[in-house]
Amino acid sequence: MNPPTSPRIHPSADVQSTAIGAGTNIWQYVVVLPQAKIGQDCNICAQVFIENDVVVGDRVTIKNGVQLWDGLRVEDDVFIGPNVTFTNDKFPRSKAHPEKFPVTTISKGASIGGSAVILPGLTIGRHAMVGAGAVVTRSVPANAIVVGNPARIVGYVDTHAGAEPLAPAKGSTEILESKVKGVQLHTFPRVIDIRGSLTVGEFGRTVPFDPKRYFMVFAVPSIETRGEHAHHECHQFLICVRGNVSVVADDGHSREEFLLDRPDLGLYLPPMVWGIQYKYSADAVLLVFASHYYDSADYIRDYNDFLALAGAAK
Amino acid sequence: MNPPTSPRIHPSADVQSTAIGAGTNIWQYVVVLPQAKIGQDCNICAQVFIENDVVVGDRVTIKNGVQLWDGLRVEDDVFIGPNVTFTNDKFPRSKAHPEKFPVTTISKGASIGGSAVILPGLTIGRHAMVGAGAVVTRSVPANAIVVGNPARIVGYVDTHAGAEPLAPAKGSTEILESKVKGVQLHTFPRVIDIRGSLTVGEFGRTVPFDPKRYFMVFAVPSIETRGEHAHHECHQFLICVRGNVSVVADDGHSREEFLLDRPDLGLYLPPMVWGIQYKYSADAVLLVFASHYYDSADYIRDYNDFLALAGAAK
Amino acid sequence: MNPPTSPRIHPSADVQSTAIGAGTNIWQYVVVLPQAKIGQDCNICAQVFIENDVVVGDRVTIKNGVQLWDGLRVEDDVFIGPNVTFTNDKFPRSKAHPEKFPVTTISKGASIGGSAVILPGLTIGRHAMVGAGAVVTRSVPANAIVVGNPARIVGYVDTHAGAEPLAPAKGSTEILESKVKGVQLHTFPRVIDIRGSLTVGEFGRTVPFDPKRYFMVFAVPSIETRGEHAHHECHQFLICVRGNVSVVADDGHSREEFLLDRPDLGLYLPPMVWGIQYKYSADAVLLVFASHYYDSADYIRDYNDFLALAGAAK
Amino acid sequence: MNPPTSPRIHPSADVQSTAIGAGTNIWQYVVVLPQAKIGQDCNICAQVFIENDVVVGDRVTIKNGVQLWDGLRVEDDVFIGPNVTFTNDKFPRSKAHPEKFPVTTISKGASIGGSAVILPGLTIGRHAMVGAGAVVTRSVPANAIVVGNPARIVGYVDTHAGAEPLAPAKGSTEILESKVKGVQLHTFPRVIDIRGSLTVGEFGRTVPFDPKRYFMVFAVPSIETRGEHAHHECHQFLICVRGNVSVVADDGHSREEFLLDRPDLGLYLPPMVWGIQYKYSADAVLLVFASHYYDSADYIRDYNDFLALAGAAK
Amino acid sequence: MNPPTSPRIHPSADVQSTAIGAGTNIWQYVVVLPQAKIGQDCNICAQVFIENDVVVGDRVTIKNGVQLWDGLRVEDDVFIGPNVTFTNDKFPRSKAHPEKFPVTTISKGASIGGSAVILPGLTIGRHAMVGAGAVVTRSVPANAIVVGNPARIVGYVDTHAGAEPLAPAKGSTEILESKVKGVQLHTFPRVIDIRGSLTVGEFGRTVPFDPKRYFMVFAVPSIETRGEHAHHECHQFLICVRGNVSVVADDGHSREEFLLDRPDLGLYLPPMVWGIQYKYSADAVLLVFASHYYDSADYIRDYNDFLALAGAAK
Amino acid sequence: MNPPTSPRIHPSADVQSTAIGAGTNIWQYVVVLPQAKIGQDCNICAQVFIENDVVVGDRVTIKNGVQLWDGLRVEDDVFIGPNVTFTNDKFPRSKAHPEKFPVTTISKGASIGGSAVILPGLTIGRHAMVGAGAVVTRSVPANAIVVGNPARIVGYVDTHAGAEPLAPAKGSTEILESKVKGVQLHTFPRVIDIRGSLTVGEFGRTVPFDPKRYFMVFAVPSIETRGEHAHHECHQFLICVRGNVSVVADDGHSREEFLLDRPDLGLYLPPMVWGIQYKYSADAVLLVFASHYYDSADYIRDYNDFLALAGAAK
Repeated sequence: MNPPTSPRIHPSADVQSTAIGAGTNIWQYVVVLPQAKIGQDCNICAQVFIENDVVVGDRVTIKNGVQLWDGLRVEDDVFIGPNVTFTNDKFPRSKAHPEKFPVTTISKGASIGGSAVILPGLTIGRHAMVGAGAVVTRSVPANAIVVGNPARIVGYVDTHAGAEPLAPAKGSTEILESKVKGVQLHTFPRVIDIRGSLTVGEFGRTVPFDPKRYFMVFAVPSIETRGEHAHHECHQFLICVRGNVSVVADDGHSREEFLLDRPDLGLYLPPMVWGIQYKYSADAVLLVFASHYYDSADYIRDYNDFLALAGAAK
Repeated sequence: MNPPTSPRIHPSADVQSTAIGAGTNIWQYVVVLPQAKIGQDCNICAQVFIENDVVVGDRVTIKNGVQLWDGLRVEDDVFIGPNVTFTNDKFPRSKAHPEKFPVTTISKGASIGGSAVILPGLTIGRHAMVGAGAVVTRSVPANAIVVGNPARIVGYVDTHAGAEPLAPAKGSTEILESKVKGVQLHTFPRVIDIRGSLTVGEFGRTVPFDPKRYFMVFAVPSIETRGEHAHHECHQFLICVRGNVSVVADDGHSREEFLLDRPDLGLYLPPMVWGIQYKYSADAVLLVFASHYYDSADYIRDYNDFLALAGAAK
Repeated sequence: MNPPTSPRIHPSADVQSTAIGAGTNIWQYVVVLPQAKIGQDCNICAQVFIENDVVVGDRVTIKNGVQLWDGLRVEDDVFIGPNVTFTNDKFPRSKAHPEKFPVTTISKGASIGGSAVILPGLTIGRHAMVGAGAVVTRSVPANAIVVGNPARIVGYVDTHAGAEPLAPAKGSTEILESKVKGVQLHTFPRVIDIRGSLTVGEFGRTVPFDPKRYFMVFAVPSIETRGEHAHHECHQFLICVRGNVSVVADDGHSREEFLLDRPDLGLYLPPMVWGIQYKYSADAVLLVFASHYYDSADYIRDYNDFLALAGAAK
Repeated sequence: MNPPTSPRIHPSADVQSTAIGAGTNIWQYVVVLPQAKIGQDCNICAQVFIENDVVVGDRVTIKNGVQLWDGLRVEDDVFIGPNVTFTNDKFPRSKAHPEKFPVTTISKGASIGGSAVILPGLTIGRHAMVGAGAVVTRSVPANAIVVGNPARIVGYVDTHAGAEPLAPAKGSTEILESKVKGVQLHTFPRVIDIRGSLTVGEFGRTVPFDPKRYFMVFAVPSIETRGEHAHHECHQFLICVRGNVSVVADDGHSREEFLLDRPDLGLYLPPMVWGIQYKYSADAVLLVFASHYYDSADYIRDYNDFLALAGAAK
Repeated sequence: MNPPTSPRIHPSADVQSTAIGAGTNIWQYVVVLPQAKIGQDCNICAQVFIENDVVVGDRVTIKNGVQLWDGLRVEDDVFIGPNVTFTNDKFPRSKAHPEKFPVTTISKGASIGGSAVILPGLTIGRHAMVGAGAVVTRSVPANAIVVGNPARIVGYVDTHAGAEPLAPAKGSTEILESKVKGVQLHTFPRVIDIRGSLTVGEFGRTVPFDPKRYFMVFAVPSIETRGEHAHHECHQFLICVRGNVSVVADDGHSREEFLLDRPDLGLYLPPMVWGIQYKYSADAVLLVFASHYYDSADYIRDYNDFLALAGAAK
Repeated sequence: MNPPTSPRIHPSADVQSTAIGAGTNIWQYVVVLPQAKIGQDCNICAQVFIENDVVVGDRVTIKNGVQLWDGLRVEDDVFIGPNVTFTNDKFPRSKAHPEKFPVTTISKGASIGGSAVILPGLTIGRHAMVGAGAVVTRSVPANAIVVGNPARIVGYVDTHAGAEPLAPAKGSTEILESKVKGVQLHTFPRVIDIRGSLTVGEFGRTVPFDPKRYFMVFAVPSIETRGEHAHHECHQFLICVRGNVSVVADDGHSREEFLLDRPDLGLYLPPMVWGIQYKYSADAVLLVFASHYYDSADYIRDYNDFLALAGAAK
């Protein structure tokens, strides 16, 4: 299926728009209304329907049985599987139309699995992956993988969660280097005596900086709670004192997931590493040591900003 | 899209029925078989398929990718979202057809969200709302909102559940008037001493009638258990002694939801108020005082009957 | 051992008091200091020691190895077993004496089992029974049986707890008459359907009065919580809605214990019956209907007063 | 709709393949690509799309809105409901195609309910039943019924699970014959005394063979764990000592499901009966007595092999 | 303190009996009433009191502050610590004497720790050990060690519970020989796979006999439940399938305690070994294989009988 | 009872020792064997028995019915209540004497409540308080209060546990000064947002030093686990991250108890303060920051040494 350099439209299709990019294919029984805009080198498969207030980027694939309603923005390199359903009215009633339809954005490089459902007004983040059959009721962060009804985050793409190099044996005392720049997983000694178990860290020795601050996160309301940000200057050291939490570290080029589930396990996050904490167990208590006092200007809270600062935007 | 006064049928559609009401639009690639009946001012979107033994009322919207099979009855003002799937055989096998297809009814004013699935033989009640992606395996009562796979009731439309006017502070002793005619939420004193906590109500004083009867509901088998009815004459007073339960009160014009979760909270339901109890916690014990001895003739068990009696049918 | 009509004192004893009643025996190696007063027909066994500020009533038995310290009051018909230990200083230090010793009272007819320990300043109630080896840290109510370290109430004397006449079969609907005057145990219908279980009572029909008031006791802090009182006029009807509680009913002549452990079981207590609620399970919720509004003058809170009013004092 | 003996293709369809069997109907707006192969007497409903590397057997029904992608194999007598979604790339990205698509097989006689989703590379077993709206993420064994997102096995077809003939009363001691050849459900005596409960079986008497071996299955990781096989020679006797487990027995002709949930209930499985254990509760401990020492050659692990050996293949 | 060959009685003592054995010492301030009988070589320490209907054997030690009341039988070689308290009336009331006192027996070789309390009518078994301060409310079996209020069995004398030779490593497969004649602790393979854990035994191979019978004990009502007996002919093999239980094996000469807490651990008890099961956890399920069908004549239920049959009586 | 300056011995007593201090009283029926040593100004009450290898200090009170056996050391100012029982053989058998009796020490100023039992070989620490009826099976640390059977630490004398000055309101941010020199209770901010709760401390600002080390204590085996020590140089800061723990701080002059039960509560212990951690809840995790790296020479582990260093020995 080598695409031609001008759009190719199947004769059975009803394409009323002229804003169709070069190299784009439109197949059987497709309907495209007059104001829709479609980029270059797209593949619009049979039985698709595209309304007016819709913008589709370049190199987008839309499989059969999909409708793109008013308000949809589909960025470059997106994949939309067969029978995916979009919606643009949260409480639809026949003959009752909202004054303005909410904007739904499918960001660059994202993929939406077959028969997934996307509720109105959401953003699906860069390179996120929506599983087949998922019913997405909240926006999906960049790189996240979501599945289920309602959809929940189950991982992040390219993290190799659970891979062997970073699963230290209980009882060992060592430092494992992540493929993410500067990130380290420390195992501290665990001493068991009649008073119970004891674990210890020494600042400037086994913990790689002198802390100016600690904080603890606890009473996390649900398994879905999630935090994401990076720091310009501040070093962090994370220990899950009770329960467990998963942490994804991302330097803009590589990404890795860690399960913190023992008080003798510490994760060192240097500055300019994007950190995601998620999958808190109900009883989780996360202790964080920070190398600097609190400074809101040190936080990078937008992933796109982070990628730009990390020289990794693409 | 100002609809014409006679049906408008797109030339690419294959419409074999002539029973199509005035003002109805039928779009691209739609198939309608000969015996189907469709009312006035409907919108039948592209790629829809309608079999023979199907009746569609007035002002109905059917979005793309939907099939209406034999046995389906769609009442006035219904909205059916894109890619909604109906079924008419509970255990389908190829080439094995049931003698008669079960009747599935979508009642007046109901909405079905995109990609929802409706199992055969069910009734979706008046103004009910089926969430996008829901898989509906049981009939849905009037005004109920259902989501998930399998679908569960999560609320009732227009109840403003959890709104502030009716969330009394713990420890206060007061009576809050609902917007539902005559319904009151009472907070009783709670005394804490070394023997535990004690709460007290006085009949004819703080409870607005003298009871002839009490009953208790307990050992509720699942979170989905639900009761609905109104009374001609009987007053009721509900206290959730243990656990919690949600109660929706409805006078035919207004509707409000209450969470009963403390033994010092009582809900007064006068006669001619439709009451729904649902979302019982596993350990819920609901104590009800009634102003009359049991009389089956005093019960109104059909919501449409209730609306008629309440002068609220529409 | 037929006692003589004047006190008989063994020659090895060192009895310095002259206030010893007729018919009392004092045995080998006993010491009695000068101000002690001992009634008639007592039996003071070998190796007993009695200090000065001690009053012992008539027909008291004191077994070997017991000391009665300053501050002790032992009423008529008391039994004190071998090696029972009394104390009269809560935080004793050598050579540090309190200015005044607290008064410890062993009421009429009580028995203290061998080797029990009684902390200072307590009252052991009429006919109470302290088990052998018990360490009594709180006062013991009339008729109660206590055992253990620390001592806990495990029953009341002469209640025939758990006897067969008053253990109704689940599912039956009947009224059982107690041997305690006017007290009834009611079993209500229990209906089980798909909504859970339901039980119902009708005021003036199956519940023997019209209530003016209900109250609920819940969040009971510990298994030891206990209430005791009677009413002049008020009828009560007790239902344990959740968990279980034991109730002792006492008309001054007979006493009976009931276990309320099902929401379809109700206990009717007429006026002038002393009621004790105890052994609350952690999750107990006790619902009480009362025939009168609250009136503090209607309460009888002292068991001796109750016995007098009931014509049962002895 | 009496099918003609040659394929009948609606003029609005775009059918590019010539390998279409006699008696097959192809309806409106269907697309069939050139290399696709379709058998006899099929019904390909409106708006279906069939790619190239697809093989469809005889007597297959494909309802509206379905796409069959490269890699799909649909055996005889399969039913595919409306809007069912197949997928052939587990991690789809636009413009990134796998070198080779995984093969997905829908086995003989299986049915897939409306709007179900089938992930790539799976096999749906013979006569299996996929519920409407199910999202199937793992292969489905023969005869299994799956529902939900993700899909879970909830039963097996034609087992009459929970039917009355085989629900013995607690306390009885008896042997119930299954409709499955030779299978018996034994109830053993249960003696309750002050030491707890005791149950006993006698080998060669109440257990119908002398065991050479016992084994226990415990610490079952999840509710979805499942085992399936038959034996040439070995007799088995299953007792669920703790928790509960469901067992399906199948002689190739009849099938029956048993709930083992009491230590005094034993299920006898003779040789040449296919046994399935599933729905283990979290605390289940399954004790099995076997008439032979372990011999791997005695196991039949493939259901098709079993049907052939049982003379039941069809 | 070399005792003389005739009884030596301190002049301060009041000894009214003449039935005192040779070599017995009686110390200061002791009282012995006329009908009491005391054996040879006893030591009756200062301040002891002995009533009339009392029989004391040979070589008995009675420390200070003890009273022996009517009904007490103290066999040879018993030790009674200081301030031990006996009782002979379960519900004592002053001046109310039972017609006949219950007999309390302290069997040969038993020891009673200081300040312990023994309730009336009990038997303390041979060589049993009552801890200091224990309050004994039930009879104590031979060799048992009891402590606490109320007293509970915490072990058996000379069992070396928890000693190292018989604590097999998890995962090993081996047979450990007990010092008790013929008793073996077997460790079976434990296989862990995705279906959970599996353990297996082979009759006549890894289990040392072919069973005629199995039985299971479950729903054990309390931690104090206990069984004791031996068999003439029957071999037994015990596996604790769930929870844990302790087993004492005793051949009349040696005694050993085993903790069964894993389904892959089996204890072989040959005939003529006295077995005690106790310390059942709340969820314990004990599976027993027996080499013979049930025969009540095969049971030896009295420990003294067992010792005689084992040639171990002394 | 004004004591004379030379020992006063009642004529009925049998005192065979001459090592009796001036001002000591010995009362009726007491026995003292020849080698016993008793200090000045003691009070030895009636019916006491003292063996040979016993040393009693000055100003000691021994109430009636007590025996002091070989091996007992009673220091100055001790109080021993009535019927207290000492033991000197852990597994007593009649006529079997240990070669040497273990030494039991009652330290200076300790008090033992009536009828308590002390097992052999223990030390009761300075000023400790043993409750009436307690059965002491382990040594008791200085100042501890123990009760029950077996005896457990329930507090420390003069700590005013739970007193009001140091119970900060939840939500406040403040530092409370203890009466113990330099000890501070810090309340940190607790921020509640949708991610759960968060608390934060700043080193050198709100935490009064820069840490060199942290350690965590977790998996504490039982409620009785207890640690006690002081530091020469090291500052400590304690936070109970999960569950709760009680801490007693003691500067040699004053003592105070703190309940740490919230992650936003921190206790600062400067050098030369004796700290006791006890009453750990089952889920307790204690986080400690230390101002120095670990140095065993910095620990003071003996309370008497600490008192001497603190200039507080007496």
